[in-house]
Amino acid sequence: MIVAPRHFSALARRSAEPPISWLMKLALDRPDLISLAAGFTDNGTLPVEEVRQITRDILRRPQTARPALQYGTSLGLPQLRHEIWRRWQRQDQIAGRRSPVTANDVIVTNGSQQLLYLITEVLCDSGDVVLVEDPTYFVYLGIIEAMGIRAVGFGSTSSLKSKLESLKRRRLLPRLKLLYLVTYFQNPTGRTWSLDAKRETLDIVKRYERAAGHTLYIVEDAAYRDLRFEGQDIPSFKTLDPGNARVGYTNTLTKPFATGIKIGYGILPPALMRAVLHSKGNHDFGSSNFLQAVLGRALAGGLYERHLPRIAAAYRRKRDVMVAQLCASFPNRARYEKPHGGLYVWVELDSRVKTGLKSKLFQRALDAGVLYVPGELCYCSDPSRPIPQNGIRLSFGGPTIQQIQKGVRLLADALE
Amino acid sequence: MIVAPRHFSALARRSAEPPISWLMKLALDRPDLISLAAGFTDNGTLPVEEVRQITRDILRRPQTARPALQYGTSLGLPQLRHEIWRRWQRQDQIAGRRSPVTANDVIVTNGSQQLLYLITEVLCDSGDVVLVEDPTYFVYLGIIEAMGIRAVGFGSTSSLKSKLESLKRRRLLPRLKLLYLVTYFQNPTGRTWSLDAKRETLDIVKRYERAAGHTLYIVEDAAYRDLRFEGQDIPSFKTLDPGNARVGYTNTLTKPFATGIKIGYGILPPALMRAVLHSKGNHDFGSSNFLQAVLGRALAGGLYERHLPRIAAAYRRKRDVMVAQLCASFPNRARYEKPHGGLYVWVELDSRVKTGLKSKLFQRALDAGVLYVPGELCYCSDPSRPIPQNGIRLSFGGPTIQQIQKGVRLLADALE
Repeated sequence: MIVAPRHFSALARRSAEPPISWLMKLALDRPDLISLAAGFTDNGTLPVEEVRQITRDILRRPQTARPALQYGTSLGLPQLRHEIWRRWQRQDQIAGRRSPVTANDVIVTNGSQQLLYLITEVLCDSGDVVLVEDPTYFVYLGIIEAMGIRAVGFGSTSSLKSKLESLKRRRLLPRLKLLYLVTYFQNPTGRTWSLDAKRETLDIVKRYERAAGHTLYIVEDAAYRDLRFEGQDIPSFKTLDPGNARVGYTNTLTKPFATGIKIGYGILPPALMRAVLHSKGNHDFGSSNFLQAVLGRALAGGLYERHLPRIAAAYRRKRDVMVAQLCASFPNRARYEKPHGGLYVWVELDSRVKTGLKSKLFQRALDAGVLYVPGELCYCSDPSRPIPQNGIRLSFGGPTIQQIQKGVRLLADALE
Repeated sequence: MIVAPRHFSALARRSAEPPISWLMKLALDRPDLISLAAGFTDNGTLPVEEVRQITRDILRRPQTARPALQYGTSLGLPQLRHEIWRRWQRQDQIAGRRSPVTANDVIVTNGSQQLLYLITEVLCDSGDVVLVEDPTYFVYLGIIEAMGIRAVGFGSTSSLKSKLESLKRRRLLPRLKLLYLVTYFQNPTGRTWSLDAKRETLDIVKRYERAAGHTLYIVEDAAYRDLRFEGQDIPSFKTLDPGNARVGYTNTLTKPFATGIKIGYGILPPALMRAVLHSKGNHDFGSSNFLQAVLGRALAGGLYERHLPRIAAAYRRKRDVMVAQLCASFPNRARYEKPHGGLYVWVELDSRVKTGLKSKLFQRALDAGVLYVPGELCYCSDPSRPIPQNGIRLSFGGPTIQQIQKGVRLLADALE
């Protein structure tokens, strides 16, 4: 690992090459590789025809083309923000109920990743504390590391309580700024939070606000919410925050549509929104107006909504194939759950097996032509526990059915 | 001004609402207002037909559509980076000469603003020093302020020398990280750096590197380079850095094409590139692949190059009208130069006249229906000199010919 020179900033010196870049590069350098690693989306269901139709409509007349090709504002295109707001109301069955949330509480960003960066940047200084799930989204851990934040991982509400107690005892609660939670088909575990778990978590967290001396924000990353294959949608944390005071809800429009059109959004409490908006002004003073116009039309015209069942069907099939192949290739040697949506299956091997970047298994799998995300990347460095070494994140988003079958078989062979 | 709460980060507490957001909002709230403020681009010359043709070509076949609608990498689309690299070689007449710079030294970002943010973030900690022109691009000053950086302004090479001497005396040279220079049709003054001035500056700066103990990077913001109306292009600072060791060259593809397609780029020395790339991985792990595919085609097919003389002609006409109107409306009451490109005319009034956001002139102009950028916003807070109060930045990019004439007349009336 090459560390930044001494005269670079502390942030640069703390930033390693993000594993995601390294994994993507590996996949690009060896096109024969079956990548079960990157969260790429399915190529076959990309909405080519939809985007063609929308861009043609926008660019047909100067009245619609010119505003789309001109600068917008830091907050985002009003029409898109309005559509996002209405969609969220429908999804969380908020429409008609009293809520202080309006389209002005919606901000548009360059994917939801940028919003996670902005939120963390405006809340945390180096040395501050963030609570994350154990395991969690590994690209978020890159932000944590770069900013010099102490991450504390928890695996259940009882572990959350004990971590908060420990922070209280060590007088670290004033440094705790937010909980980062991936609540739908989590990356990497595929698990979804129940509404009860959300309610209980919020109750617990509120009890520590007095000792913290400030609002403890819940940042709910709902990036996979729209990729549900079966079962009922679950209301967001936002529905438990009727005053819009403590939950920052982040989501993406492009994971379930087209990842090349990189647009995410958030619904944020006013104080957090103000700070994020100011920082967004410094980062880029607004996301591409053209992409926002495209997605605004995709939402307004129903193309987006009609696209969802199509990709859900494609991913459901891939998930089924992956789980069936795991069952066939890993009898009694692995634990995994069947996720009800998203892009990932989380596999835990025997606790003596190591899956890390430097492990024999990773190297053998690579030699055999298959790439996965080692589970170790998904755990924060929390000195209170060793990092579990036996997890594997498999993605069924990008590879074909045949690649999934072959990839899982090769992985099982490598484990022999 | 609302300051972020005490428990937010130092960055958030230092970030004020960027003046650009405030000015844009003002313009949006009062659509009758003639805005000579924002650097909007000319609506009439936006490349509607070009973008229509390119998106149609990309989306016509799955083979070209799917890669454009899929994720890319943090560094950017190889085809676009190659086109950018070749274009830079032609522009700086580098082609055929020995140069270590390849397409791998090119990074693509969400407008050049994001790259300025990334470069500054990976080089500077709070308390570090950055040298800027006096006056300079006011949105960059927002980054400086948020990051807690000390900015030192200079107006000439002799003033640069004395500022460096002063930093040396105060033992602050080790904290000096970069010089930020807008070298073509500068924002806000419209002035262009000569090659001699670049050479002299580089010579001066190099002499202080030993005392600094590290490379003093030159960040050359060439955002307006492609908007030249007359005269010869001038080689970049990058041509004076044959080893690719100390000049970070940043530019935008969208200011001279379509600002709604927000893509910028940089050519960076390896150490700086590595740090910027890591941080970009945390910010958003790559700019929209779709927009990159659009601009890749615009460059490869010559549409971009053919578009430049069209917009240059439109802006030249607007510049002529603005200068003629200034001459008619401000006889003997203002100093200004005719810029040879870009979007701005910089006007200096009698030194007793105040033009600031809280001045009578600004309020009267607003009441009369015309908005400008007060010069005070373009100066860093440098304790060694008071901030000049009598400057005005006028943009001729967005308004129509009639609006320019009327706007300048209203401004002159307000001054009465």
